Order: sequence, then structure tokens, then C-alpha cells
Amino acid sequence: MIKRLLSYFFVFFAFNTIAQNVKPILVIHGGAGTISKANLTPEQEKEYHFVLNQALEAGMKILQNGGTSLNAVEASIKIMEDSPLFNAGKGSVFTSEGKNEMDAAIMDGKTLKAGSVAGVTTIKNPISCAKTIMQKSEHVMLIGKGAESFAKEQGLELVDPSYFYTDERYKQLKKAKEIEEKNKKGSGKIDVWKDYKFGTVGAVALDKYGNLAAGTSTGGMTNKKFNRVGDAPIIGAGTYANNKSCAVSGTGWGEFFIRTVVGHDISALVEYKNYSVKKAGEVVIKKVSDLGGDGGVIILDSKGNFSMPFNTEGMYRGYIKANGESKTFIYK
Amino acid sequence: MIKRLLSYFFVFFAFNTIAQNVKPILVIHGGAGTISKANLTPEQEKEYHFVLNQALEAGMKILQNGGTSLNAVEASIKIMEDSPLFNAGKGSVFTSEGKNEMDAAIMDGKTLKAGSVAGVTTIKNPISCAKTIMQKSEHVMLIGKGAESFAKEQGLELVDPSYFYTDERYKQLKKAKEIEEKNKKGSGKIDVWKDYKFGTVGAVALDKYGNLAAGTSTGGMTNKKFNRVGDAPIIGAGTYANNKSCAVSGTGWGEFFIRTVVGHDISALVEYKNYSVKKAGEVVIKKVSDLGGDGGVIILDSKGNFSMPFNTEGMYRGYIKANGESKTFIYK
Repeated sequence: MIKRLLSYFFVFFAFNTIAQNVKPILVIHGGAGTISKANLTPEQEKEYHFVLNQALEAGMKILQNGGTSLNAVEASIKIMEDSPLFNAGKGSVFTSEGKNEMDAAIMDGKTLKAGSVAGVTTIKNPISCAKTIMQKSEHVMLIGKGAESFAKEQGLELVDPSYFYTDERYKQLKKAKEIEEKNKKGSGKIDVWKDYKFGTVGAVALDKYGNLAAGTSTGGMTNKKFNRVGDAPIIGAGTYANNKSCAVSGTGWGEFFIRTVVGHDISALVEYKNYSVKKAGEVVIKKVSDLGGDGGVIILDSKGNFSMPFNTEGMYRGYIKANGESKTFIYK
Repeated sequence: MIKRLLSYFFVFFAFNTIAQNVKPILVIHGGAGTISKANLTPEQEKEYHFVLNQALEAGMKILQNGGTSLNAVEASIKIMEDSPLFNAGKGSVFTSEGKNEMDAAIMDGKTLKAGSVAGVTTIKNPISCAKTIMQKSEHVMLIGKGAESFAKEQGLELVDPSYFYTDERYKQLKKAKEIEEKNKKGSGKIDVWKDYKFGTVGAVALDKYGNLAAGTSTGGMTNKKFNRVGDAPIIGAGTYANNKSCAVSGTGWGEFFIRTVVGHDISALVEYKNYSVKKAGEVVIKKVSDLGGDGGVIILDSKGNFSMPFNTEGMYRGYIKANGESKTFIYK
């Protein structure tokens, strides 16, 4: 009996020692696209770095205080959703009808639980709605009005759709429509206007318990039609996390990310072929390129190795380690 | 010059010989669940076998006439959507609000192009809408009213929502609500009532050109709330096709199929670990079981090997080969 108790104690002790040895880390992105020095003023660059750092610090604070990767991912993404700089939450782009329709997803690498929301127009922080769906419902994905009813029932912060209006994004819609008019593209086609296709935000984190999480949030594509949904809320495409392999959040031309099942494909290469996160990311971004798509991903494994590959001109991105060391980047 | 022409001719000839040697095959399912001899009368059994055979023959006719796997998959699924027996199209189950909200997806294994639709209430054949999204738009996934506007623009057949009313399904909703009332479950929870969780339809096919395709269509879960979306329209979860590996269509408890990324995980095990479709299917259905979910899949590789694993009492299913040999099944 005492022997058995001792062995339980040993297992408990060993587990906690291992768990406590994991050094938390957080990696974020704020979208990939035609981001070049020519397009950004030094002031704009500074603003982006500032908010990226705010997002990193908000997430790391949670991790340093013993919080979960899931909560860190949510906190980081909320900062970016609340900023007008990124195409998510407050800064979401406009649909063809002049609305802001948002998608988001979150996934817990330990339990493989996930939550996802698409086509919502009144939820201030779609990432929090995704987390609540994961934790408080038996569903994974809710869309449109139904998702909003759920959010209301759960007491999440709802806002008037006008909250998401920003002059900058509205100008982009007008410009996209002008180009569309010129192109005279047929119906059902989107305007593939590189500058305004991207801007999704995302985060991946590893907590001190050794658990991974991933989250992604987006306003989608400027001038999108027909309630189009991209890869962000698709578990396995724009968002995926699994302690056995890695956590992934994507940003890019959603249609190609869905067809390539980017998140799960990276995870499968790590788990089944023992690829490093670096190699897996490169291989899968090449698959996206080969189909004609573009974008980037952030990847983090349960040992804290991370990678941030992209095939566009730039990607807003950064990382922060448990010792506070952090760095943010915009260009290649 | 003549040498080069000859070599072109040889390559052309060799390619066509190989291509013509591929023997088309089609595999379908009409849902997995608590399907036991005790639940079905001999007449009902006969009806299911009859419609499954109709679906197999409709698809094989296309394949035998040199049609594509994509068109065969659509044709088979349309037969099941038009039948009140299956939980898709005409026979869709009711939501908590007494509506019929349908999801569907289709994928082309050659090009990795895909189309997907969720939460539609007026499209007679959601699988055809998914195919049209794939072929006529630059999007993959459209939802709700937007998807319906697109369908209208494309001239697809729209019906009044009352078309989807059937007494049988309405009785199931009433029964589900009675049980829910008894359970007094909290809001945001679904009633996990095994008998009425399943019934999704799907098809996977290989055409004489060696190309795979997969499609899935569903009315979702009886008594579903908040515009819940299941795995059927999620590329990589309920629907996936890739000539390099296999085509997959799933049926079951959608939430667990999404979290397991069932379709792409089976494909990854075939491509990255050289698993047979049989082994890959067993491994992934076991993952679904381990999480607490249930259901089944049909899997077909580009050599014509197929598998139909499930962990429920039964699954409506069948296959048909190029020589006309076919078989349909209900129980284990």
C-alpha cells in the first residue's frame, strides 16, 4: 500500500517537474500581404510594432502567471481585434454590401477541443465567442445570427455593426469596387486585389503545462460577396493545435488555405514524418504557392520551436519568450 | 524533329493506355447511427437498399459513359438528397426552430478544387450548389443567405422551405424536444440523442481518367441550435479528396469529425505513412471513438481500393464497380 502511494507520489512529482520545466512562448501574426517599405510610413511601422508588442505582452503576462495557452492566445488576439490596424474585429474590412462580417476560431492542443464562428456582425471580439462556443456548448462551429444569439445568451459583449466602421477600410472597399468595375469581372468572382486580401490576425502559444493552443480572427476579404467564409474559422485549415505535433495559425488567401488544409497538413508532416516545424511550414507554404495562392503561417511545437514562413512581401509577426525576450517584424 | 514527335506520341499513347486502364468505382453512404434490425421493418430495409442502388447506378452510368468522378459523386448524392429516407435535401432533419438548414461540400482530387455550402434553407440540391461554387466562383465556402443569392444568380433550383417538410422528421424533432425537456439541459447544449444524430449522405468515386472526387450532404442534427454547422461542409473534416492519397466522405457526430480533421487525417496517413485505406480508416475512426464521438467514413484510393469503417450499429452504404457488380449494406 505504502509502495503504491509512493509510486503515485513519484509519478505526480515527476509530472509536475516536467510540466514546470516547460518554458512558455507566444508567437503572433497580424496578417501577410503586399507589405513593403514603400507602402508604410515610418509612423505606421511604429504603430504596427507597438500594437504587436502590446499583444505579445498581454499574452505572455497570462503565461508567466501560470495561465493557459488558450487564454494567452485569446488575450493576444483581442488586442489586435480591438486595434483598427488589423483586419479583425474593429479594423475588419468591408463586404461588397458595405458590412463587416467576421470569422474566428480557437483550438486547444491538449483536448483537441475547438470553437469556431463565421459570418458574425455584432460580436465585438469574435475570438472570445469562438472560445465560449468551445467551452460552453457541445458544438464546434456556429454561424451568422445563430452564433450571435448564442453570444448574447452567454453575455458576451455585443456592439452595433457601426462599431466596425473605419474610414480607412471604407476607402479600401470603394477602391476595390472601382477596380472591379474596371475589370468587369463576371458575377461570383472576387476581385483578386492583392493589397486588400490579407490582414487576418492569429496567435499560437505554449504554456508551462506543456499545452499548445492556436487562434485566428479575421474580417475576411475586402469586397467579399455571398457570405463567403475563408480559412480562419475552418479547423484544420487556418487554425489547428495538437500537443502531439504543433499549433498553427494562418493568414493569406483563404480559399487556397482551405484546399491545402494548411494547419492539419503541417501538423501531419510534423507527427507522421518527423519534420521540424521549419521544414513542415516551408513544404506546405510551397503547396499553397503551387496552387496559385499566397500567405503565411505561424507554427509552434510543444518544445517551443517555432517558425513564421510566408510567401508574400511581408507579414506582421512577432514572438515573446518566458524571459521577456521579444521581437516583432514586418518585412522579409 | 521526327524523333521528338514520336516521343510525344509515345507519351500521349502511354498516358491514354494507363488512363483507360483505370476501372471506375463508386462508393456511397447514407448515414451511420443506431441502425439495428429492431429499428427497421423489412419494408424499410427494402426501401433503403432500393434508393442506395438507384444512387449507385446513377453515378456509375456517368462513369461508364466516360464522365468524371465529380459528376458521378454529384449524381449519386442528388438521388439521396431527393429521397425522404436520408438526412439530406428532401429528408433533412429539423432545427430547434422547426427549420431545415442544410450543409454540403464537394472536392476534386485532381485539382484540389473544392466547393462548400452551409446553413441554406431554399436550395433543392445543396451538393449541386457546392459544385457550382467550386466551378463558377473563386470561393470555396459560402453560407446562409449569401449562398442562396449565389445559387439564384447561377440558376440553380430553389424551392420554398416547406419543400423540406416531412412528417417523419417533424415527429423526430418533437420527440427530441420532449427528451430535451426531460433532461433539462442548460442552454447552448445539444441533445445527444443517438437515434437522431446521423443520416448524412456521401459519395466517393474514381473515374477512368484516374481522378478521385468526394462529396457529402446533410441536414445536420435534429433539434440543432444557433446555426450549428457540422463536419460535412468542412473541407478536410467530412469531405476530402486528393489523387495522391484518397477520397473520403464522413457521417457521424460532426463535432468530433471536425476536431479529428477526419478526411485529411486519413489522407495524410495514406500519403505520409503508406497506410492502406483500410488501416487509415480504422486508425482515424478509433481517434473519433477515443474522443467520445461516433460515425463512419467511406474511403477510396486511386487504385480502386476502398473501405467503409464505422463504430456505430449500422451504416447505410454500398459500392458499384465498372462491371456492374454492386452491393449495398445496412448493418455490421
